[in-house]
Amino acid sequence: MADLYPADRLTTAQQAADRAGLDALLLTPGADLRYLTGYDAKPLERLTCLVLPTHGEPVLVVPRLERAAATASPASMLGIEIATHEETDDAYALVAGILGAPGTIGLANRMWAEQVLRFAAALPDAKQELAGPALRELRMRKTPEEVDALRRAGAAIDRVHNRMGEWLRAGRTEAEVGHDIADAILAEGHAQVNFVIVGSGPNGASPHHELSNRIVLDGDPVVVDIGGSMPDGYCSDCTRTYAVGAPPQEFSDYYAVLQAAQQAACQVVRPGVTPESVDAAARDIIAAAGYGPQFIHRTGHGIGLEEHEDPYIVGGNTEPLSVGNAFSIEPGIYLEDSHGARIEDIVVVTEDGHTNLDPGCTRDLVVLD
Amino acid sequence: MADLYPADRLTTAQQAADRAGLDALLLTPGADLRYLTGYDAKPLERLTCLVLPTHGEPVLVVPRLERAAATASPASMLGIEIATHEETDDAYALVAGILGAPGTIGLANRMWAEQVLRFAAALPDAKQELAGPALRELRMRKTPEEVDALRRAGAAIDRVHNRMGEWLRAGRTEAEVGHDIADAILAEGHAQVNFVIVGSGPNGASPHHELSNRIVLDGDPVVVDIGGSMPDGYCSDCTRTYAVGAPPQEFSDYYAVLQAAQQAACQVVRPGVTPESVDAAARDIIAAAGYGPQFIHRTGHGIGLEEHEDPYIVGGNTEPLSVGNAFSIEPGIYLEDSHGARIEDIVVVTEDGHTNLDPGCTRDLVVLD
Repeated sequence: MADLYPADRLTTAQQAADRAGLDALLLTPGADLRYLTGYDAKPLERLTCLVLPTHGEPVLVVPRLERAAATASPASMLGIEIATHEETDDAYALVAGILGAPGTIGLANRMWAEQVLRFAAALPDAKQELAGPALRELRMRKTPEEVDALRRAGAAIDRVHNRMGEWLRAGRTEAEVGHDIADAILAEGHAQVNFVIVGSGPNGASPHHELSNRIVLDGDPVVVDIGGSMPDGYCSDCTRTYAVGAPPQEFSDYYAVLQAAQQAACQVVRPGVTPESVDAAARDIIAAAGYGPQFIHRTGHGIGLEEHEDPYIVGGNTEPLSVGNAFSIEPGIYLEDSHGARIEDIVVVTEDGHTNLDPGCTRDLVVLD
Repeated sequence: MADLYPADRLTTAQQAADRAGLDALLLTPGADLRYLTGYDAKPLERLTCLVLPTHGEPVLVVPRLERAAATASPASMLGIEIATHEETDDAYALVAGILGAPGTIGLANRMWAEQVLRFAAALPDAKQELAGPALRELRMRKTPEEVDALRRAGAAIDRVHNRMGEWLRAGRTEAEVGHDIADAILAEGHAQVNFVIVGSGPNGASPHHELSNRIVLDGDPVVVDIGGSMPDGYCSDCTRTYAVGAPPQEFSDYYAVLQAAQQAACQVVRPGVTPESVDAAARDIIAAAGYGPQFIHRTGHGIGLEEHEDPYIVGGNTEPLSVGNAFSIEPGIYLEDSHGARIEDIVVVTEDGHTNLDPGCTRDLVVLD
């Protein structure tokens, strides 16, 4: 784990904050805190916050009863001072005392509103901005150790897909199938199940349908989109669409279009290409086949310590891709009230193109009997 | 489920917001949104937000790809208008357009900072406050249907504790035991595992320790604190401390003190009593036995659609308890580097005292061999 949290990362973050015009970062539990310190802090109503002055020493503020957990985390090994507060202390005043009088502070993007307003009251003269714009470039550029972590996550979720025939068959409910998949996500090495989507028949036409008591029928196309977090925090996310018995001809037709579109989008990935052109590579093929209005979401999202993070592979995103960017490529075609299909891999940008982190399970239609 | 989301709740919430001086509530995915509408919305980077003007009709703003899920939720059955936005739309401008020019808006307490700042930009003349103070009294006063939901959750987690002998024994790691417990939490009826703490030996002295690869030894006291969410969203949370083989005499001594303290705190619960006096009822007994410094956290927290919510059972909370309040009573004694113990039940305030929602598993020390 040590390699995942290099000691110079805090310094790099301070330099990035400085360039963004921030005098300090305030990072509550979440991906930014874990990225900088390795501390997988629990989001509690009691304040946990990394106080990182742009010019000064970091202090990790934690509730007293989290001191043992914080001390056992990589944050402690990085030499970060840990300051604790008691149940009835004002933790926000404690942070204000550490910071003095900052001009502009960068808040963790997912800090809670109740904390944002408490910090506004405790530091009334500080302008509040987001930490994300300062940290996103660092977090988007995965180190080789991070790519290895994502590769292990991908291999784990691929193993789950390759076992789908054990669970997915006609006569079972989506919920029953989903329960078995969740068990397997853990059994194959994840520490946590993040989501399990089993969209059978018409439910496959709703991209974010999760599970229901619908019974899978013979001939159903079934979208299975699953992911979890590994013990080191890095995420998997992989979608395959199955047919349980022989699917409708119409489905097979558009599945072939989708497969070509997904492959085309992967193939254009290399440094310098824009996310919107990756999106267009998939969208153009789907639109040319007449399914444009049935592809109702963006092509992908970044992945790392969060399931969804920068860069987003979407129209309008013109920031060129660079080495170490990791993201999903997951076009879909959805025929409302009938069925749908989606194919998703995670790819990483390399010097001369990209690497696919889900090489372990086929993108050809798998028919389960 | 319909009874869990009465149709007049939105009106009641509007009245509460009005009394709190708010012109509108903005509720992103989380417990407040689910409480008011039944919609268990996913927290996504794309904006989902219930826009509830104090004097006006509610609108549920969702990304287009969540429309099917929102329409299938109780929110739709309540007749709430659903407005969708596309990938490249400005969803915050959409909300501003719905609201017009509100003077003060109440934000969901756990809305993300990135959303708070976007709303500040889209509604520059609106004062931002929190929705929590307006909604907390409603959410704290559980309806009979909510109490039934919490009772079902309690019964489910009690069944897991009663099976502990299947998994917890010397020679197994905490992680192995925890994995089996997580499976059982789902098997006994929960939809989601929220946390699994197995603190064996010295790890039991860290209240929020989760799981490790430490092997449980003969003679170890083991703190097992577990909880999950039922399909209707209501949470369980129950701690029992076990001994694997004969525990140290010192442990047995303070376990008896803890058991008396936990029972005493339960017994004082009735309408009109303050949370701080419930806390004191446990704390005084522990302190009198000489373990005051070893009880390092508050006595409890409210529970409902969130594992931790109002009311908090802590020194300084003088707001009298009232019928329908549901919370944990979980004193602990922690001997750093040696072992610890905690006993936790969920109780609900009734007209003439309280009901214990974890009646199904003993608070006497269970020795597993």
